[in-house]
Amino acid sequence: MPKTISLAHGAGGSMMDALIKEHIMRHFSFQGRAEVPLQMLDDAAVIDDVVLSTDSHTVSPLIFPGGDIGSLAVCGTINDVSMVGARPLALSAGFILEEGFSVDTMEVIVRSMARVAKSAGVPIITGDTKVVERGAVQQFMVNTSGVGKRRPELDRNLKEVERYRPVKYRWLLDANLKPGDVLIASGLLGEHGIALLSFREGYGFETRVKSDVAALNGLMGSVLAAGGVVTAKDPTRGGLANTVNEFAEKSRVGVLLDEASIPISEGVRAACELLGIDPLEIGNEGKVILGVVKEKADEVLGVLHRHPLGRRAAIIGEITSQVKGVVLETEVGGRRILQKPLGDPIPRIC
Amino acid sequence: MPKTISLAHGAGGSMMDALIKEHIMRHFSFQGRAEVPLQMLDDAAVIDDVVLSTDSHTVSPLIFPGGDIGSLAVCGTINDVSMVGARPLALSAGFILEEGFSVDTMEVIVRSMARVAKSAGVPIITGDTKVVERGAVQQFMVNTSGVGKRRPELDRNLKEVERYRPVKYRWLLDANLKPGDVLIASGLLGEHGIALLSFREGYGFETRVKSDVAALNGLMGSVLAAGGVVTAKDPTRGGLANTVNEFAEKSRVGVLLDEASIPISEGVRAACELLGIDPLEIGNEGKVILGVVKEKADEVLGVLHRHPLGRRAAIIGEITSQVKGVVLETEVGGRRILQKPLGDPIPRIC
Repeated sequence: MPKTISLAHGAGGSMMDALIKEHIMRHFSFQGRAEVPLQMLDDAAVIDDVVLSTDSHTVSPLIFPGGDIGSLAVCGTINDVSMVGARPLALSAGFILEEGFSVDTMEVIVRSMARVAKSAGVPIITGDTKVVERGAVQQFMVNTSGVGKRRPELDRNLKEVERYRPVKYRWLLDANLKPGDVLIASGLLGEHGIALLSFREGYGFETRVKSDVAALNGLMGSVLAAGGVVTAKDPTRGGLANTVNEFAEKSRVGVLLDEASIPISEGVRAACELLGIDPLEIGNEGKVILGVVKEKADEVLGVLHRHPLGRRAAIIGEITSQVKGVVLETEVGGRRILQKPLGDPIPRIC
Repeated sequence: MPKTISLAHGAGGSMMDALIKEHIMRHFSFQGRAEVPLQMLDDAAVIDDVVLSTDSHTVSPLIFPGGDIGSLAVCGTINDVSMVGARPLALSAGFILEEGFSVDTMEVIVRSMARVAKSAGVPIITGDTKVVERGAVQQFMVNTSGVGKRRPELDRNLKEVERYRPVKYRWLLDANLKPGDVLIASGLLGEHGIALLSFREGYGFETRVKSDVAALNGLMGSVLAAGGVVTAKDPTRGGLANTVNEFAEKSRVGVLLDEASIPISEGVRAACELLGIDPLEIGNEGKVILGVVKEKADEVLGVLHRHPLGRRAAIIGEITSQVKGVVLETEVGGRRILQKPLGDPIPRIC
């Protein structure tokens, strides 16, 4: 039977991983002079000291509690460029519009993009608009791509790491972790996915849970100024479970997470229990998981606590050679393996 | 009545112009330190000496005579980055896939992207894959964004221009033309749109007319080495009519085109006569319209004729203060105004 695309192929888990590795990436073997090439499958790539990242956005509905497809698109790409240690310079916006779509709604989204871009200091400098006939696309989709340049703080930050141990890569890559490092979550997890799902399905949790969509370029600047950060990743599709498994695979290390320390709000916890969803597999849009040398962990945590987007930050685990893969020490004292999700429990969240 | 999006809003003509200026661009007024900002509405933008361009591709069908959505996407973005005088460094690819889409067809497209990218020397270094449920998008759409850096040949090229007259912008922008300059088309016009339309509707012209999809970064390098080029634009949606009207508007000059000199193949001419379409309004995917100081026109033409993608290049007109807007001297000796098309006569060609 010929193989066809399924929703899980886009959900940020192991099926998407396989699709990309087997059917896309192996053809894109020519990577020219890329310093961080496609094969690293990190948040952004680097060539000639230019950082490049891209994201297409298909979230449904277009406007949701805490944000809309416009703020999501701008923040998502700013965050991906920021995660490798770059300062985002500018964005592009590529719109695909359905014939019959409301110009007023489009303008609400465009204004939201403009507002977030301006407040983050990252302008949208180029764009493209395509219109397709009714039925060829659902209402409105948008791609944002972003360029960035190396942050001056990054070199100082890595020098600080090297006071304690050598660093493999000179960008903040998933493959940079070593046993002894500490993982920090910058805030409450699961808010974006639960807000989306609840609003879409009418479950009512959205009165307590809103999307966390936010641009993290400022926060990353503050954190790097403190120093000691070896990697950073925003836990979007596939949530914390996917992010931490990426760390473990690419750095070839074990990860021990302390379930009780993982910051999750009462609203998300209640929704997840009711719906039978693991909050660790839910996508976020304004959070970062940092890998930090343990000697600097408290200082970085302090910086996060003083930043408006990091008030609920917490140390959630450590890198260790004592376990294989990702192991969760549960609140009741047991241990379970936290696998990369097969697919995201909630589709169309970004 | 609330305003809604129509197909003409995406067709590269005056309706798209109005949509972008009134409902999108005016919100994106924050442009940071952009040297070539969004407001120039040129092929690419420039910030901190990084060139950025983006294009979403919705061509239907996905595979057509002479190319496919993959080769089109890669060439289109390489060309946009090249048109301002930059060397494209790398591309991103953002896929939107419909649930149920054939993995084999996807792989045909991906391989085509890889082949064209490698042969043009511009790697695809980062990507994104989204899957949406059946009906939310038609099969497959892709966004390519590209980054580039200033070509070393560009400074020498502009110095050559300055032997004859001052230059306004230090990039190849639409607003750079002055009376006396000459316009050169790099080859036969109308091939892409006619091949698409004919194949889609079963008219049969596609046996003689194939898409001209091609990457022009190499050709632009050769042309700039000759010197004397003040602007360059690929006549995609809206064709030559749209491109030359953009030149006239942004440079505030008149353009006099010589219809008999415009290179059009017999196949395209026959198809256009039968279908009642103006070949000058049809989109191309492997052609450039160059603005050149007249003293260097013959030399640039010679360089084009020696390049595999420029063999049919021709001088097609001149910049003049003798006319307002764009005027076509027809083959029968009359004159007619060539307006910016309202929309493209052929939808979904890119």
